[in-house]
Amino acid sequence: MQNQSTSMPIIDGATRLFAIVGHPIAQVRSPRVLTEKLRARGLNDIVIPVHALPEKFDEAMRGLMGLGNLDGLIFTVPYKVQAVPYADTLLTTGRQVGAINVLRREDDGTWTGDMFDGRGMTRGLANQGDNVRGLSVLLLGAGGAGSAIACALAEAGAKSVTIYDIDAPKARALAARVNEAFPQCKVETGGPRLAGHDVLINATPIGMKDSDGLPADVGPLDGVKIVGDVIVLAKPTPLLREAQARGCHTMDGIGMHTGQAEEIVDFFRARKG
Amino acid sequence: MQNQSTSMPIIDGATRLFAIVGHPIAQVRSPRVLTEKLRARGLNDIVIPVHALPEKFDEAMRGLMGLGNLDGLIFTVPYKVQAVPYADTLLTTGRQVGAINVLRREDDGTWTGDMFDGRGMTRGLANQGDNVRGLSVLLLGAGGAGSAIACALAEAGAKSVTIYDIDAPKARALAARVNEAFPQCKVETGGPRLAGHDVLINATPIGMKDSDGLPADVGPLDGVKIVGDVIVLAKPTPLLREAQARGCHTMDGIGMHTGQAEEIVDFFRARKG
Repeated sequence: MQNQSTSMPIIDGATRLFAIVGHPIAQVRSPRVLTEKLRARGLNDIVIPVHALPEKFDEAMRGLMGLGNLDGLIFTVPYKVQAVPYADTLLTTGRQVGAINVLRREDDGTWTGDMFDGRGMTRGLANQGDNVRGLSVLLLGAGGAGSAIACALAEAGAKSVTIYDIDAPKARALAARVNEAFPQCKVETGGPRLAGHDVLINATPIGMKDSDGLPADVGPLDGVKIVGDVIVLAKPTPLLREAQARGCHTMDGIGMHTGQAEEIVDFFRARKG
Repeated sequence: MQNQSTSMPIIDGATRLFAIVGHPIAQVRSPRVLTEKLRARGLNDIVIPVHALPEKFDEAMRGLMGLGNLDGLIFTVPYKVQAVPYADTLLTTGRQVGAINVLRREDDGTWTGDMFDGRGMTRGLANQGDNVRGLSVLLLGAGGAGSAIACALAEAGAKSVTIYDIDAPKARALAARVNEAFPQCKVETGGPRLAGHDVLINATPIGMKDSDGLPADVGPLDGVKIVGDVIVLAKPTPLLREAQARGCHTMDGIGMHTGQAEEIVDFFRARKG
């Protein structure tokens, strides 16, 4: 790791802890990214990686949640569903998705859980001046990422979200849940046809390999305002390359991660009162 | 804290954790001091402060010891005695003192505990080229610090240690324990008289206030090679001022802390095999 021995961590007895919990853990970027964002706000906070072994997850959680100087937890694979019962209060998106990736300790000592995987998309778009408010979205994929993004789009004021998944019952179940949680947004299922939509979001893994091509036969991208893709790659996916060629605004998986980190820091260190 | 927002901690998913556990915890210096020493060896390690509440100490210990990326624990007030039962293997000094301040995870997953409070004195002396090997020591104070220092002196090869404490039975009990553990060193109790000794160590709290004067009426310091004082103060205690005036080599509480940090880092990251 660059500069490891020259740039010293500033950590002391008063440092407040956040922990990202996963199995494995060595691959996560959150400790550095989130710590930098917390420090940039002048806070003596640090995000530490925590490798919780599956057979010791509950023991790890009870130990961590009991510490007097730990203010929040982040969850990555495979613990996003297992973490749900540790929340005293489960916010809307976490409840709809059935999984959380963040737990925050409140002033009264209770823990509030929510799922931020989808808010990275809307925050990432907002960071570049794009807003889904009032727009019609075609969302490809009703899995974990798709579920979280569907909630985030509805929460951000999208007029409608059409969900397509090759597993049609899965898409219908998600549409029903999001409709119930966010009645002001019209959520339905449909074919992967872009016509009539302003925004296209890919929440499937298709596009990780260059040979994958487009995630579905969505028709021409002309006239589409925004195209987002959850895939995290250094170079644009085939979908995003096509979108850029057509003049659409785009958001990739890296921009989503940045947006999500900002949302999580806001959640952890919300101005109180 | 200086540079808090400009000097970024380098921490990522692969960072290995050590934790210093105490109640309270905000005052400890170890996270910064030990992290700097570990980083200086090119290791991606960090020492985090952990505030374990007394009613949740066991829960905290079980959670921390179960983590896959935590390699060691350090204990401060009030947990040095409570930590003993968590050691699968208790090394000599920890056993004699009846308290530990370090637990290290071994390659086989077991935990080895030991007490380093006294080794800071001998390591601090070694750092400045002083060695107690073959010397006769007068040790004032048979409490926690005195117990750990008596073991460290014997371990470092002192010829003899004479222990003085106003609580004579306490001094006798300590002398017996250290004699048993380190039979090559002659440990006995005696009055606080320097005559015939090469080294004087104060392990009592006397000297924290300038008005305290000397910790005991030890007689003239002339001819004494080394005078050590456990008291941590920015300026020399009355004892150390007197010793410096007489040309003795001296070691203060700050130098002991530095020495102890080096000993602990050596213990945590001993070259294996």
